[in-house]
Amino acid sequence: MKFTLQQLAGLLNGRVEGDDTKIVDKLGKIDETTLDQEGAVCFLANPKYESFIYQTKATAVIVSETFVPKHPISSNLIWVKDAYSAFTTLLEQYEAITKAQYFAKKIGIENPSFVSPKAQLGENIYVGAFAYIGENTKIGKNVKIYPQSYIGENVEIGDNSIIYAGVKIYQDCKIGQNCTLHAGVVIGAEGFGFAPQPDGSYKNIPQLGNVILEDNVNIGANTTIDRATIGATIIGKGTKIDNLVQVGHNVEIGKNTVIASQVGIAGSAKIGDNCMLGGQVGISGHISIANGSKFAGQSGLNNNITTPNKSWFGSPVLEYKEFLKSYVIFKQLPDLKKRVEDLEKKE
Amino acid sequence: MKFTLQQLAGLLNGRVEGDDTKIVDKLGKIDETTLDQEGAVCFLANPKYESFIYQTKATAVIVSETFVPKHPISSNLIWVKDAYSAFTTLLEQYEAITKAQYFAKKIGIENPSFVSPKAQLGENIYVGAFAYIGENTKIGKNVKIYPQSYIGENVEIGDNSIIYAGVKIYQDCKIGQNCTLHAGVVIGAEGFGFAPQPDGSYKNIPQLGNVILEDNVNIGANTTIDRATIGATIIGKGTKIDNLVQVGHNVEIGKNTVIASQVGIAGSAKIGDNCMLGGQVGISGHISIANGSKFAGQSGLNNNITTPNKSWFGSPVLEYKEFLKSYVIFKQLPDLKKRVEDLEKKE
Amino acid sequence: MKFTLQQLAGLLNGRVEGDDTKIVDKLGKIDETTLDQEGAVCFLANPKYESFIYQTKATAVIVSETFVPKHPISSNLIWVKDAYSAFTTLLEQYEAITKAQYFAKKIGIENPSFVSPKAQLGENIYVGAFAYIGENTKIGKNVKIYPQSYIGENVEIGDNSIIYAGVKIYQDCKIGQNCTLHAGVVIGAEGFGFAPQPDGSYKNIPQLGNVILEDNVNIGANTTIDRATIGATIIGKGTKIDNLVQVGHNVEIGKNTVIASQVGIAGSAKIGDNCMLGGQVGISGHISIANGSKFAGQSGLNNNITTPNKSWFGSPVLEYKEFLKSYVIFKQLPDLKKRVEDLEKKE
Repeated sequence: MKFTLQQLAGLLNGRVEGDDTKIVDKLGKIDETTLDQEGAVCFLANPKYESFIYQTKATAVIVSETFVPKHPISSNLIWVKDAYSAFTTLLEQYEAITKAQYFAKKIGIENPSFVSPKAQLGENIYVGAFAYIGENTKIGKNVKIYPQSYIGENVEIGDNSIIYAGVKIYQDCKIGQNCTLHAGVVIGAEGFGFAPQPDGSYKNIPQLGNVILEDNVNIGANTTIDRATIGATIIGKGTKIDNLVQVGHNVEIGKNTVIASQVGIAGSAKIGDNCMLGGQVGISGHISIANGSKFAGQSGLNNNITTPNKSWFGSPVLEYKEFLKSYVIFKQLPDLKKRVEDLEKKE
Repeated sequence: MKFTLQQLAGLLNGRVEGDDTKIVDKLGKIDETTLDQEGAVCFLANPKYESFIYQTKATAVIVSETFVPKHPISSNLIWVKDAYSAFTTLLEQYEAITKAQYFAKKIGIENPSFVSPKAQLGENIYVGAFAYIGENTKIGKNVKIYPQSYIGENVEIGDNSIIYAGVKIYQDCKIGQNCTLHAGVVIGAEGFGFAPQPDGSYKNIPQLGNVILEDNVNIGANTTIDRATIGATIIGKGTKIDNLVQVGHNVEIGKNTVIASQVGIAGSAKIGDNCMLGGQVGISGHISIANGSKFAGQSGLNNNITTPNKSWFGSPVLEYKEFLKSYVIFKQLPDLKKRVEDLEKKE
Repeated sequence: MKFTLQQLAGLLNGRVEGDDTKIVDKLGKIDETTLDQEGAVCFLANPKYESFIYQTKATAVIVSETFVPKHPISSNLIWVKDAYSAFTTLLEQYEAITKAQYFAKKIGIENPSFVSPKAQLGENIYVGAFAYIGENTKIGKNVKIYPQSYIGENVEIGDNSIIYAGVKIYQDCKIGQNCTLHAGVVIGAEGFGFAPQPDGSYKNIPQLGNVILEDNVNIGANTTIDRATIGATIIGKGTKIDNLVQVGHNVEIGKNTVIASQVGIAGSAKIGDNCMLGGQVGISGHISIANGSKFAGQSGLNNNITTPNKSWFGSPVLEYKEFLKSYVIFKQLPDLKKRVEDLEKKE
């Protein structure tokens, strides 16, 4: 990939400030000021990184129309409407080329692998070495199943989905189209249900349901999604889940919800559409959460949220701004206590 | 599985209110009010779900004797002593049939697998494809070892235990009878011990012990239990551990303790019998916890608990009710501060 | 391993109090007072365990010069400058013998395994059964790759590194020398980046970078480290990471930093050298943390830390002592509120 800045500006609907005959051939990071950045094109979108634009030695920086420089900049600039989406466009073009090359080789069935004679395989799939595909399982077309994955019995995987190395999918689970499951994901392990017995021990409660991932779902590395006791644990269309997340049995998550790393969602919780859960958030069981709810990292929720589109923080959660107001005073508590003592002395 | 309601009531020691000749052939969820529920039998145990009983189109609902309807119910009812345990009984009957069919096929050694000629295999076991069984390892009878599991050298696995796909058990660890280890579990990785050196670097402290799971232990998907520095990390009989839990080196957990997802237990902590740890609880190292202690989700503990059977909340933990009392006032802190300011002005 | 106490004291530069002809042949734990401890040598370093030295039946206990017994001790004592490092020395000697025996067998390539003909393998390596090594990948000398590991295309692994069972390394990542990756680790999965679309759905942002582990890095079981969007996610030399930790895309961690279990580090955070992060700590994205920072367990950070060598606690974090001061009063809030009410009544 080699472009003159003029070509690049054309591609991005932007305009060059500086030498538009210069050539760039790689993507760079604006805060990488020590490495050789000759030939690199970076972008400035997050204001936190503004100071780097005055130091970078990158050949070009993509900036938004709204940006107003405070100091001189030695790099050439490409002014665009929105620097972040312009850069994303570039990444996509670059990925389209590199992924096409990479995936072109991921076709066919490597040996040894274990494919049940009763499994149904779609056209144009990849099955890596040491992968296991059980009885009555249906794999759609263009699906990639990486080495050492386990796909149990009676599973369905929709067209164009990617199952990375070492994913484990228990029997009866359904994966939609265009899903991506990263390495080490476990789908359909038994939910955590135990009935206490009179002698203090616990008896397993059978977990007879399954897991359904709708289309366009992404699941991060080593995340676990348990099968339902009865019915299905459901992840709605377009929902994106990060690494090391726990989704308990019978949970239902809506569409286009984004769940960051290490979130834990206990059994039978229902989460609406278009929600955002920050890292390490904890959701208690049997809770219902309205559409568009947002949770700051490490928040803990143990009650229903019925009003949509609000932001929450703390454990247990308060409304985001209320939590911050209280927390400001939490920091001042030693002073506040002293002031109460002073008042008492004056009585 | 097809029953008339009369047959079902007989099985559950209950009585039918409605048409006892109706037939049910599947288990349903009471809060699933949109799907076709013809032929479904649900149960109502959690009062949170009461409103659904007035809407459900399920053929029958199992209810407890103590339930008093507030509105008319269109479904047939089966009154029993305890709806939850009656439903569990049903699940078990259903599972007994379906699991028997499922496990009937999980017998024998699939190819290719790697079994050391010095390993000892019990009768009637299943070894899935791509499983690895190391030297001097002893596998009890009726054990199921799913594909892509790794059982290192000198491991023991007791009778009737189930090792799901991709479990990794390091050398020298001992798994009891009737244990279940879900996919992706790691048993016996080296504990996190490093001795600081004068130059600021760290030297690994050798981890020479092992992990012992006693009988009837369940371990959830992708949970990790580290081997002891010396001696053993021990999980007591009947203890149930959920997904993505971390158990550090030399931890000792008692019997019939229940540990929810994403709990972290640091090295050398000792947890008693019959404890309950909510999701994402953190336990510091070298801590001792009395029998019957209960922790709300996200609690953090950095001191011994010597009085048994108490409930705890917060980080660091307070007694459950004390935490809630303080937290109520935390929410009011901006108001409380203003009241102190008002008092000061009046001075 | 059999030593007289005299021999042991010689090895540790210590002196025996008691019968120096007694023989020890195993390492014991001082708090293990019920098992047979005949022939065991323990150590006392953590003052929390002092009470056990008056009860232990171990043949010998290693104690520091500074220790002053409060009661009679029945075991023989070995007095040394520092009991902990003396014991570590013993462990190392013991491990040197046992590991040498254990690893002596981990040489060669087990069958079946999958090694690309275009991969380059160093001398003296171990490749376990069902391991996968992709195209153009370079494995250094003395490297051990355990069964069921996946090493993608164009990966480099430095000399003497150990890749335990079931580790997954995506294409293009670089692992330094003398690194240890425990079972279930995932290196190089795609970072969690999604661009919101006008219809509420999300589009994947390509993740084109890689992961670089410098030399002497340890990674605990089931930890996940995502590849960078562009450039590299970097783990500095000598840094030690525990189990189930999440490291997001484009994170950079310095040298000799220690990160306990279940910590989550969001994308583009930069963590300095010689930091210590307690268990379950959460670090927000695009944050920068000064060298030598320490975080108590469960702390949450959403702002830069620019002053080095400070300790932090709480979520969001305060300076360690400030948090404790405020938390003491948090516990007293019901009382403080009542005092304000009393003052108001007196107005």
